Amino acid sequence: MQTGLEQAKNMTVGFIGLGLIGGSIAKALKKRLGVRVLAYDTNEQVLLTARHNDIADETVSEIGPAFGQCDIVFLSAPASHNLFNMRIVLPHLSPDAILTDVSSVKLPIHRLADDARAGLRFVGGHPMTGKEHSGLQYAEASLLQGARYVLTTSPKTDGLRVERMKQLVTAMGAVPFLMQPEEHDRAVAAVSHLPHIVSAALVGLVAENDDAKATMRLLAAGGFKDLTRISSSPPELWRQITLLNAPQISLLLDELIRKLQQVGKSLHRSDQDALMRFFEEARDYRNTIEEHKE
Amino acid sequence: MQTGLEQAKNMTVGFIGLGLIGGSIAKALKKRLGVRVLAYDTNEQVLLTARHNDIADETVSEIGPAFGQCDIVFLSAPASHNLFNMRIVLPHLSPDAILTDVSSVKLPIHRLADDARAGLRFVGGHPMTGKEHSGLQYAEASLLQGARYVLTTSPKTDGLRVERMKQLVTAMGAVPFLMQPEEHDRAVAAVSHLPHIVSAALVGLVAENDDAKATMRLLAAGGFKDLTRISSSPPELWRQITLLNAPQISLLLDELIRKLQQVGKSLHRSDQDALMRFFEEARDYRNTIEEHKE
Repeated sequence: MQTGLEQAKNMTVGFIGLGLIGGSIAKALKKRLGVRVLAYDTNEQVLLTARHNDIADETVSEIGPAFGQCDIVFLSAPASHNLFNMRIVLPHLSPDAILTDVSSVKLPIHRLADDARAGLRFVGGHPMTGKEHSGLQYAEASLLQGARYVLTTSPKTDGLRVERMKQLVTAMGAVPFLMQPEEHDRAVAAVSHLPHIVSAALVGLVAENDDAKATMRLLAAGGFKDLTRISSSPPELWRQITLLNAPQISLLLDELIRKLQQVGKSLHRSDQDALMRFFEEARDYRNTIEEHKE
Repeated sequence: MQTGLEQAKNMTVGFIGLGLIGGSIAKALKKRLGVRVLAYDTNEQVLLTARHNDIADETVSEIGPAFGQCDIVFLSAPASHNLFNMRIVLPHLSPDAILTDVSSVKLPIHRLADDARAGLRFVGGHPMTGKEHSGLQYAEASLLQGARYVLTTSPKTDGLRVERMKQLVTAMGAVPFLMQPEEHDRAVAAVSHLPHIVSAALVGLVAENDDAKATMRLLAAGGFKDLTRISSSPPELWRQITLLNAPQISLLLDELIRKLQQVGKSLHRSDQDALMRFFEEARDYRNTIEEHKE
């Protein structure tokens, strides 16, 4: 394993899955460090595009021995596929390689790495960036620029590999944040996964309750559209994510339901003070988030 | 009462409350029809600004006999104040005048109008427009341009007055939609009031569950910000609105809670099919809303 980025040009970086995120990281690393890129994807057309556009130097149609030449391998397919692909690529990796991923849930993949005796070489990753559209055609190096990039470790993770990943993330233009997988999964359950479920539930409610004249759809203004825009993203991705992070989501979902039941009681009792506190608490905390806006 | 807009220049339009919406309507009517504007507001500074900027031709410091000269009076204060102000202005109105409002809940004000024997002259109104900021300084005629403007009627409402309001709304540049108050209140409960409550509940959940390092706030990305932006609006306004529309909101809130409990069960059972249907239903309906985007 190389211990610095001085020899980065001789470095080979592998990608298993080359969509919006994997493609953007590949572009950023080629542009900033001039690394060599090896890519696998289930979609042959994607690999063709990657070669034609110099996003990948070499592509392969299976997860096999070719990945033995990589210094670093990114598992960059949808979350559940990364779990599956990790088992397949492990026997082919060189002993010094770093294995990392870009999944939005971190505990299951750390557990799998530990179970598969790959805890030492695995460093979890979650770049907090994205677009409304997915796919390699939307990938660009600038997507990583200034983005928060969470790196997660288990007690088994090799400290030297973590340092190297921090350097690599910084080299992409992103900002590394070290975290425990549990911390990460709990936080994204609150600020990403649960909001997604709630957004879908609100849309479902309107779909089921609208009248024949579509009055609700007619009156759906900017606020509703903002609130439910994320419901347009691919159902399959969200099924995978919510199932993988089900334990953390469930805890917060129960708490949200209790909170909504409490609001229901306040409305029933016309409890002015309770409603005022409820809206004020939200306004005050929301305003602290706005200040941190990128 | 005038039966057309041909004599609009001789028309006097009264506003009780001159904020973002009342001010924008006043500006639009002056610009498009050249009407005379009489305004009352609890804030003297607002009235001064209105006179200096030719938004109002005359201002008064109480809701009194001056409103007897008006052909149309807009109740354009926050929703609960409009109920209060209706009782005060009624004895001063000329027999031919139209009384209207801009409240985002319509059944309570129609009931009050009927109880106060003003059902004949009252036409409910709800312009579906707004801004993140409130106050007369943000008012502009263009806010009404192309906006959906709901007009509500009770069985007692005078048809001629409804026609005249439709003409007036069209003259503002907005698009009138006739509706029953119950229809309106049920629809906005679903696409505006309940989403607002849910947004506040999500923010409250994060406020209460974040750790000492503020990990959740750190990881709150674009989706969460979009979803919770409406929580920044004034708590007092939302307390009034949710209490006035409590019956409609409560019905839908119960249904939303059942839906979330169902998702909780699907997560617990790892029910892939149920989760897929849940996210697909939302995606499919949400995409039909996007097509109708202004």
